[in-house]
Amino acid sequence: MISKWILGVFVGCMALGSFAQSPADTIDPRKYARITTDRVDGRYVSSRGVVHAMLKRTTPEYTFRPDFTQPEFKQWQQGISRAMADIMHHPSMEGLPEPHCISSEQKEGYRVEKWESYPLPETVVPFLVLIPDKVNEKNPAPALMCIPGSGETKETAAGQPELNPRFQEDEPYERWIIALPYVKKGLVAVVVDNPGAGEASDLEGHTIAPDYQYEAVSRYLLELGWSYLGYSSYCDLHILNWMKRQSFINKERILISGFSLGTEPLMVMGALDQSIYGFIFNDFLCRTLERAIVLTEPNKYGVRPFPNSIRHLIPRFWCKFDFPDIVASLAPRPIIFTEGGLDRDLNLVRKAYEIAGKKENVSIYFYPKFSNPKDRQMIERLPEGINRKTYFNLVNVDDPMHDIKSNLTIPWLVKVLDLK
Amino acid sequence: MISKWILGVFVGCMALGSFAQSPADTIDPRKYARITTDRVDGRYVSSRGVVHAMLKRTTPEYTFRPDFTQPEFKQWQQGISRAMADIMHHPSMEGLPEPHCISSEQKEGYRVEKWESYPLPETVVPFLVLIPDKVNEKNPAPALMCIPGSGETKETAAGQPELNPRFQEDEPYERWIIALPYVKKGLVAVVVDNPGAGEASDLEGHTIAPDYQYEAVSRYLLELGWSYLGYSSYCDLHILNWMKRQSFINKERILISGFSLGTEPLMVMGALDQSIYGFIFNDFLCRTLERAIVLTEPNKYGVRPFPNSIRHLIPRFWCKFDFPDIVASLAPRPIIFTEGGLDRDLNLVRKAYEIAGKKENVSIYFYPKFSNPKDRQMIERLPEGINRKTYFNLVNVDDPMHDIKSNLTIPWLVKVLDLK
Repeated sequence: MISKWILGVFVGCMALGSFAQSPADTIDPRKYARITTDRVDGRYVSSRGVVHAMLKRTTPEYTFRPDFTQPEFKQWQQGISRAMADIMHHPSMEGLPEPHCISSEQKEGYRVEKWESYPLPETVVPFLVLIPDKVNEKNPAPALMCIPGSGETKETAAGQPELNPRFQEDEPYERWIIALPYVKKGLVAVVVDNPGAGEASDLEGHTIAPDYQYEAVSRYLLELGWSYLGYSSYCDLHILNWMKRQSFINKERILISGFSLGTEPLMVMGALDQSIYGFIFNDFLCRTLERAIVLTEPNKYGVRPFPNSIRHLIPRFWCKFDFPDIVASLAPRPIIFTEGGLDRDLNLVRKAYEIAGKKENVSIYFYPKFSNPKDRQMIERLPEGINRKTYFNLVNVDDPMHDIKSNLTIPWLVKVLDLK
Repeated sequence: MISKWILGVFVGCMALGSFAQSPADTIDPRKYARITTDRVDGRYVSSRGVVHAMLKRTTPEYTFRPDFTQPEFKQWQQGISRAMADIMHHPSMEGLPEPHCISSEQKEGYRVEKWESYPLPETVVPFLVLIPDKVNEKNPAPALMCIPGSGETKETAAGQPELNPRFQEDEPYERWIIALPYVKKGLVAVVVDNPGAGEASDLEGHTIAPDYQYEAVSRYLLELGWSYLGYSSYCDLHILNWMKRQSFINKERILISGFSLGTEPLMVMGALDQSIYGFIFNDFLCRTLERAIVLTEPNKYGVRPFPNSIRHLIPRFWCKFDFPDIVASLAPRPIIFTEGGLDRDLNLVRKAYEIAGKKENVSIYFYPKFSNPKDRQMIERLPEGINRKTYFNLVNVDDPMHDIKSNLTIPWLVKVLDLK
C-alpha cells in the first residue's frame, strides 16, 4: 500500500519547495526527463549524472544466465547464498533465550497464540501463531510464515483484532488478511510484524499510524553497518528456526508468504535457508536497479523521483544481484507469483526452474487486467526518463489492485502440499 | 546554513502528517521525549527503541584515550587512518587524465584559473585556483584547499561571480567568502564544490537552488557500497594530490579549510594523508553518536527529529570513531577551531596535542557569545530526550552566527606559516 502520509511528505516537499528562497521557477519535466550530458567526452559535471552513469555501468556479480548448465546453476546458487549472507550481516548470537508463549485464545476451529522471541539482547519480537484444532504433535501440519506489507500489522495479516484502532488498514479489511484462509485449510500460520510497524512502532500509535517512521529505524541500522532488511530477515529467520523445532509443525513443509514489503525478507530467507519448502511471492517482480536508472522524470520543480524509503537501502545489493536473480536462485522449490511483472523477468525465473529440472514448480499469475498476454507490455528494455505512473504501466502493474490474492495462492498450496 | 527548503520539507511532513488517514492526534512531546521501555527485562518491543539501545551500546573502536602514551597514541593514529581508508572505499584508479586548465582571468593582485579534474571515468570535477601575482614556480607559495558548506558554491567561497543567480547565497555575501582573504595574504587557494551543489547540481539551478537534492546522489552512492563523503573526499583528495605536483605550490605547506559540511572531507583527508600541513575547522566540534542518542524529543505528531540528510550517512562510521577522535588524531599538525563546542570534547583534542608534544599547535575559539568560559555550558554527559534547540544551547552553539570566521583564521595562519 502506498503510504498516504509519506506521499503527503513528497507532495509537501514540492509545495514548500516553491516557497524556498525566491519562489522557485518551474520547468517542463519532459524536457529534462532523461539524465544526459552535452560534453563530447561523455563525462558528467552534475553529480546526479555521475551516479546515474555509475548505476548504468553496474552489472550485478550474480546475474542469472539462461545458458547455465545444471552444475553452473548450482554453483551460482551457492554464490547467491554466500553473497546474501555477506550483505545481510546477520549476527551469530549464542545462548539466546527461547521464544515463549504469553497468551493463547481459542477461536472457531483454531487457536491464536501470542509469542515473544528474543533475537538480540535488547530486542523483543512478538509474533502470532495460529494453530488449527486438529493439529498437534501427533498430527503435525505444514506451516506458513506470513510477512505483511508496509503499514500492515501482524494482527491485520492474521485476521485478528488490532492492538490499536489506529493500526487498522483501509477497508475492506479482507483485502489484507493473509493467514486465516491457510489456517482453515489445516496449516499452522506464524505471523510477524515488519520492524517499526504496528506493535513494533514507536509513537505512531498515538498519532499518524498506520503510517510509520521506518526512516529513523533504517537510518540508525545503516549507521551501524546493518540495514532494515538485514534486521527484519534476521528476526524472521530466528522465528523460522523456532518453527522447525515445534513438534506440531512438519519442518519439511515450511513455506513463506511475503506481501509487498514482506517479499524482501522472503527472498533473503529463501537464499539463506535451503530447508524452506516453498514461497508465496505476493507482489509484482521487477528489476530494482533498472527502475532506479529509468525513473528520472522530474516534477516541475526539477526534483526527480526519489527511489524509495531507505528501509530498502542495502549497501552493495546491486553489486551482487537484483530481485529476478534471487527468486531464480530459489529453484527448484515451489513458488507462486501473484502479480506478474514483465514477462522478460518472469521468463528468467521459468528458465531457472527448467534448468533445475522442475519447471512445473513455478506458477505465475498477473494482475487480472494483464492476465491476457496480448494486454501486456512485452518489453526487453525500459526507456530512461519516465515517471512512476509510466513505469507501472510499462511493467504491467495495476497498483490499485495490489492486495492479498488468496484466490490464487490457496488452490496452488492445495496442489503443492497435496492437501485434501 | 540551514536549508529553508529542507526545513520546509520537515514542516511539510508534519503539516501533511496531520491529514493522513483520520486527522492525526497529537501528543505532549515532553511526555515522550526519552526513549524508554517499561519491561522488567529492559528489552524493547519498539524497533526505534531497539536501535536506540544498539546506539547506546556502541563504543567506537578507535575512541581516543587521554591516558595514551606517545607510542600508544602513534599506533592509535595509524589505526584511525586504516579504519578511515576502510570505510571510505576510495577506488584506486590508474592512468587517469591529468586535470587541465580551461580558463584564466586576471583580477586585481591575483588570477583565477578554472580547472577540470577527472577522478572517475564518468566524472568531471571543476575547481577554481586563485594565484597571487607574486606567486610562480620560482616563488612558490603555501596553498589552502577551501571546501564550502552546504548550499554554498565554490564561486561563493572564492568570492567570484556565481555561474547562476540562483546559486547566490543569502546576504551579506561576505559572510560566505573563504578564499580571498588568504589569497591577499599571498597563499594559493584551491576551491572546490561539494558534490551535488552549484555547478555539480542537477536541475536545481533552474528551480530550487541554493537548495540542492543531495539525497538522490547520496542514496545511489550508498546503494553501490560507497557514500557521499566517500565520494567527496575521494574527489577532493584527487585535487589535493594535483596541488602537490604544482611547482608554484609549496607542497610542504598545504592546508585544508573546511566550513560546515566541508569539515567532513577535511577530517577524512587529514586522517588519510599525513602530508597535509594544517587544518582550519570552521564549525563547532561535536560527538555525532551522542547527538543521535540524545536528540529524541518528538514533535506533537510523535515524529522524533530525523538525524540529518543521508549525505552524512557512512555505514560503520560510529563503529570506528566519532568526530573528536578524528581531529585528535591530526595532532601534532596545526589546527584551528572557530566555533567551539563542548570543552569536554575540545579538551580531548588539547590532550592529544599535548601527548604529541605540540600543545601550541591547537587553537580553539568559541562563538563570541560563549567566548567567556563562564558563559559556556560545561557538560560531561548530555541528557537524553532533548530537541534540536536545546541541543544547540547545551553544546554552546549560536547557530545564527555560523559563518566564515577569517577574523580568527587569518591571524592564526600568519602565525602558523610565519607570513609577513
